[in-house]
Amino acid sequence: MDSLEYQEGRTELDTLGIFALVDRLSDGFERHHDTTVKGVGDDCAVLGTSPVKTLVTVNTLAEGVHFDMMYTPLKHLGYKAVAVSVSNIVAMNGRPKQIEVSIAVSNRYSLEALEELYAGIRLCCDRYDIDLVGGDTVSSRSGMVITVTAIGEVDEDKITYRTGAKLHDLVCVSGDLGSAYSGLLILEREKVTYQANPDFQPDLDSYDYVLERFLKPEPRIDIVQKLSDAGVVPTSMIDVSDGLASDLLHICQSSHCGCEVYEEHIPIDYQTTRVCSEMSNNMLPVSNALNGGGDYELLFTIDQKDYEKVKDMEGVHIIGHITEEGMPAVMVTPQNTTITLVAQGYRN
Amino acid sequence: MDSLEYQEGRTELDTLGIFALVDRLSDGFERHHDTTVKGVGDDCAVLGTSPVKTLVTVNTLAEGVHFDMMYTPLKHLGYKAVAVSVSNIVAMNGRPKQIEVSIAVSNRYSLEALEELYAGIRLCCDRYDIDLVGGDTVSSRSGMVITVTAIGEVDEDKITYRTGAKLHDLVCVSGDLGSAYSGLLILEREKVTYQANPDFQPDLDSYDYVLERFLKPEPRIDIVQKLSDAGVVPTSMIDVSDGLASDLLHICQSSHCGCEVYEEHIPIDYQTTRVCSEMSNNMLPVSNALNGGGDYELLFTIDQKDYEKVKDMEGVHIIGHITEEGMPAVMVTPQNTTITLVAQGYRN
Repeated sequence: MDSLEYQEGRTELDTLGIFALVDRLSDGFERHHDTTVKGVGDDCAVLGTSPVKTLVTVNTLAEGVHFDMMYTPLKHLGYKAVAVSVSNIVAMNGRPKQIEVSIAVSNRYSLEALEELYAGIRLCCDRYDIDLVGGDTVSSRSGMVITVTAIGEVDEDKITYRTGAKLHDLVCVSGDLGSAYSGLLILEREKVTYQANPDFQPDLDSYDYVLERFLKPEPRIDIVQKLSDAGVVPTSMIDVSDGLASDLLHICQSSHCGCEVYEEHIPIDYQTTRVCSEMSNNMLPVSNALNGGGDYELLFTIDQKDYEKVKDMEGVHIIGHITEEGMPAVMVTPQNTTITLVAQGYRN
Repeated sequence: MDSLEYQEGRTELDTLGIFALVDRLSDGFERHHDTTVKGVGDDCAVLGTSPVKTLVTVNTLAEGVHFDMMYTPLKHLGYKAVAVSVSNIVAMNGRPKQIEVSIAVSNRYSLEALEELYAGIRLCCDRYDIDLVGGDTVSSRSGMVITVTAIGEVDEDKITYRTGAKLHDLVCVSGDLGSAYSGLLILEREKVTYQANPDFQPDLDSYDYVLERFLKPEPRIDIVQKLSDAGVVPTSMIDVSDGLASDLLHICQSSHCGCEVYEEHIPIDYQTTRVCSEMSNNMLPVSNALNGGGDYELLFTIDQKDYEKVKDMEGVHIIGHITEEGMPAVMVTPQNTTITLVAQGYRN
């Protein structure tokens, strides 16, 4: 009866980009309700008829793919699961309000383990004023899968879709990029060492920043607040979950434009640079920024008229500008070489 | 580093009831927003400040626990995943509007398999006028886990919580009970036969009703509509996902009351009775109704004044009445024996 693995004309999932997969799967669905303002295709769905819209988003983390129990404290995992969903609300210029948490978990986990996970969920909820309003806890045959549904609000005239970037807009990013992936590289390196020699005690102190960036990312609600205080509504916005390259391409494809960003303006922390220098393959820090992902910083575009308001805003970096439709998304190096940005394949 | 399996003072998850687990995990979370009308503890969260409230619920189905790929057509699985979440919206007397679908899936599945799953999701969406507005598709190391977030609306004065049942209210249930579990029993029996002899072609035709009840349950939106047309607002309501016994106890515990239901009034289909008679352990059909679960019928209470409006309503059965606080939840047999109902343990 089960013929999953022996189909004729089978198309492997990993041959598809994430864009193609989501587009193809949700293709042909009709819209039945006026209250569905925006469905598939952005960081959140936008719902409702009143001037204050409801935002809804779901994000799933799977054991062995998004987290490895060898080096992921459960409390951090709970925190992160909330943070990544909340980050999607923030990326629509919204205010997170509630979450529901669904967990599929094997008997390998004890009640105490789940309580530790929930301690992290609670920490993130308390930090960002979010109410836990429901969820589902089910058995699974192996590992843990956590899905967090986040619900938020946004004023109609302040919604920032991926679609609004226009010619000459400035491209901005918050914080620094590539540090989360650098943290992951360190954890993977220490895991290999530990597996070879279980008496080995990893020294992780000097990597504290990149480790925290990977294990316990923060949604940049503070940046959205600063923009609001300055009277700036970005023309488009997304959170950097897949890496700068993929997420810039999301904006360019959705907004029908190209862009030019300058390598020297891409914010990279010194610990990221140090981690790259330690890796045997002489990794370039900018590669981590472009392709690493998991930073959950905000990538957004602003109208040139808002330049003065943003140029000295703490934690915000102007890294380039939007070019016209038909132009590629490129990075310009300090040597004035132009590199066309390419999306990484199937996102995990 | 990983010490999940070797903790001191470890409490196994399967020693806990589902009530205890959810209560314990969400204990100590504070409410930050007035828009959170109702959080954990009912079929849905109730959100918003306007007279039309937003309902949100999540439900997760895990491979090997809730479905077995040996006998679950992917199209049915997609349909069911939507139906069970929508059923929670209906159980609050609400109208389903939107869903988001999150899938963790291993490379064992092809694009074509996911398309088949989405064909079922679409069928259910089209049937019940629901918009697919988002989701997440991630890799998993093994099997498939599907989480559906459903969003709906309900007029403030028509919300039916589990908490509203009061002394002398009548206990009602829609459709029939125990058939979904009977379908599962047949599928499990045929699976064993097939594994022993792969040339065996199962004859499932005469079990069509119970199989469909298990594989493709329907949310009872029609019943909620009939109640609305008749001007009846149930005093409490829940959908029968865990079996009549557990779900009656949910209502009794939430409403601080007891109840008495009559075995002879519990609706049971003849196919359910036939399946039970075929099973080697002489299973009682009423056991399937009480403990089988998965029927997704509506269990609700109504004020006695609404008796005339409900007594001849097609698809609705009055099975008992609410007794006072401190009394147990019991079933009275045709021989006038009283059996105290017990919740089944940890719900999968």
